[in-house]
Amino acid sequence: MRPTDDSGSTMPGEAASRNAGTPLRMLFPRDGWVRMRDAIADAGIRIEPVLFEPDGSFSVEGRAIPLDQARFTAAWFSLDTFARGQDEAFLARMVEAPDLRWMQSARAGYDHPAFARLAAKGVRLSMSKAMIPAIGEYVVAAVFDHFQRGPERRAAQAAQRWQAFPFREIAGSRWLCVGYGEIGRDIAVRARALGAHVTGVRRSGGTDADADAIVRPDDMADALAQADVVILSVPLTRDNDGAYGADFFAGFKPGALFINVGRGPLLDEAALRSALDDGRVGHAVLDVCRVEPLPPGEWQWTHPRVTLTAHTAGIGSGLYARTDRLLVDNLVRYTTGAPLLHEIGPEALA
Amino acid sequence: MRPTDDSGSTMPGEAASRNAGTPLRMLFPRDGWVRMRDAIADAGIRIEPVLFEPDGSFSVEGRAIPLDQARFTAAWFSLDTFARGQDEAFLARMVEAPDLRWMQSARAGYDHPAFARLAAKGVRLSMSKAMIPAIGEYVVAAVFDHFQRGPERRAAQAAQRWQAFPFREIAGSRWLCVGYGEIGRDIAVRARALGAHVTGVRRSGGTDADADAIVRPDDMADALAQADVVILSVPLTRDNDGAYGADFFAGFKPGALFINVGRGPLLDEAALRSALDDGRVGHAVLDVCRVEPLPPGEWQWTHPRVTLTAHTAGIGSGLYARTDRLLVDNLVRYTTGAPLLHEIGPEALA
Repeated sequence: MRPTDDSGSTMPGEAASRNAGTPLRMLFPRDGWVRMRDAIADAGIRIEPVLFEPDGSFSVEGRAIPLDQARFTAAWFSLDTFARGQDEAFLARMVEAPDLRWMQSARAGYDHPAFARLAAKGVRLSMSKAMIPAIGEYVVAAVFDHFQRGPERRAAQAAQRWQAFPFREIAGSRWLCVGYGEIGRDIAVRARALGAHVTGVRRSGGTDADADAIVRPDDMADALAQADVVILSVPLTRDNDGAYGADFFAGFKPGALFINVGRGPLLDEAALRSALDDGRVGHAVLDVCRVEPLPPGEWQWTHPRVTLTAHTAGIGSGLYARTDRLLVDNLVRYTTGAPLLHEIGPEALA
Repeated sequence: MRPTDDSGSTMPGEAASRNAGTPLRMLFPRDGWVRMRDAIADAGIRIEPVLFEPDGSFSVEGRAIPLDQARFTAAWFSLDTFARGQDEAFLARMVEAPDLRWMQSARAGYDHPAFARLAAKGVRLSMSKAMIPAIGEYVVAAVFDHFQRGPERRAAQAAQRWQAFPFREIAGSRWLCVGYGEIGRDIAVRARALGAHVTGVRRSGGTDADADAIVRPDDMADALAQADVVILSVPLTRDNDGAYGADFFAGFKPGALFINVGRGPLLDEAALRSALDDGRVGHAVLDVCRVEPLPPGEWQWTHPRVTLTAHTAGIGSGLYARTDRLLVDNLVRYTTGAPLLHEIGPEALA
């Protein structure tokens, strides 16, 4: 560990400095800076840190500083603000930051309105895929619990009733990934390793080495009608609010399992409720809702065919390490002028 | 489908008969015969069936016949007797059957005393591995539920509390398969496909392409101390009743997950209870117990760190198809004098 002080510049020591003449003035949530300063220095990156403090203020070298004098040109929207409940405050200040040119987010989604506002100001935005392996595990776990009749097993144990429940195997089951981007592909790799047949749905069609089949959205009816598991993992855009409703669920194989790891507003939740009530959809695993946190009393909490989790799918034990590694990778890229990983163009936010 | 009557001989039709001169006089549980007669005929096997009826009697061509006149030389101990609660009755009669020379079991375990008695009479015994892929899925599902904090998630949903639970990923976790036969290997293949590190324990040592490491039982202390997941999948023999007790659990990494898909009597259940009470073992998933069915009131039903299922791990949706395919395979082998799949020698039962 190289010597640093809590709020000052890193001391790059023996590592060759990649940006010797021009230290990068960059905003970090304090927790993220404390965690990452050594790794950044080890990568040869010189930083003049501005810290976003737990109380929402900014500081440089231990002294508070107003936003309009902070002069940072880069910012890390790390997971630390999420952990402290400061995401909204952080994004609101980024929109106001006068000199910001690049923000690295630790999230995959860019549907929050702040991203479009930042893009409109010319701020480069790079996102993260660090949650994807966790989402893949979440989805496979959800299928196992449903196929293995977890609720019935647990009820039998609670009743002290020795009862064997024959269960469905994942091997041989058919999965449809509605949205075959990197999340869909990660799910496909895991599911196929367990013997499932996976079809991906994406606008560009084509083929993919990690899926048994790829179809375009307009051509997915047959695959939907055969799917035992349907996973929704498309990004929320201006065009698809509520797009998955009665017509979508009417095309399901009766009793199929539905999993939403995309965004809550993609769904017509009333249509899902009807489809669950009449058994068209056998069970729904919802990690996202239109309104989050979902208020007590909403039907999803108590519907017998709903498993509800609190936007948890991505929060796996490897998330921080992957997120932190990406920051260093993209810092090296940014300071050397190489293309950023997971940068989204303004057209995606227009 | 070729014409047959419910209790008579198959009519092999166009399939070449493999045993034209000598139809095999073989005992089938009635349900199994009804399900399999066409497939057997399609394989070119001529059978003179004797049926084990749901009431425990025997019949030939629709007429009851006493066991000492039934003259079957082969028998299929299929899953149908399990489904009808007739396993004990079936085995008791097999031990008495005067002409029996071969029994194909649909089970993996041969610890029931009837197997040793049959072997002692010179009856060839071939077992089944058809439940193994289901056991593999059961184990992976059990790890997911524990790592993803399923009980806490479900409690939060029941309380209508929006709470995200960061979870443990299987990727990067370390598993120890105590007993690295075909079950251990199946688990290893699945776990490694999900990114886990797997060590197998078997007496013969050596290496195995499907495991990261293989150790002998006497050398497993280090691997045990590092394992996040410990799976017991050894057969029960005369030498290992209660062999996994206080010493075994004392070697665990504190908080590790323990899964028993072997046999209940392998465990010193009181020692497991103590290890769970003091947190040395973080959670136990038990699919088997020393006494089955486990009587109501036993501690395993209600211990907060126990997930109990009723000898369910092997009962996956592909079990019957795999079991039935094995019967045909071994019928072909038996009638042509080829080695039987999964035959156990008398030394295993001596």
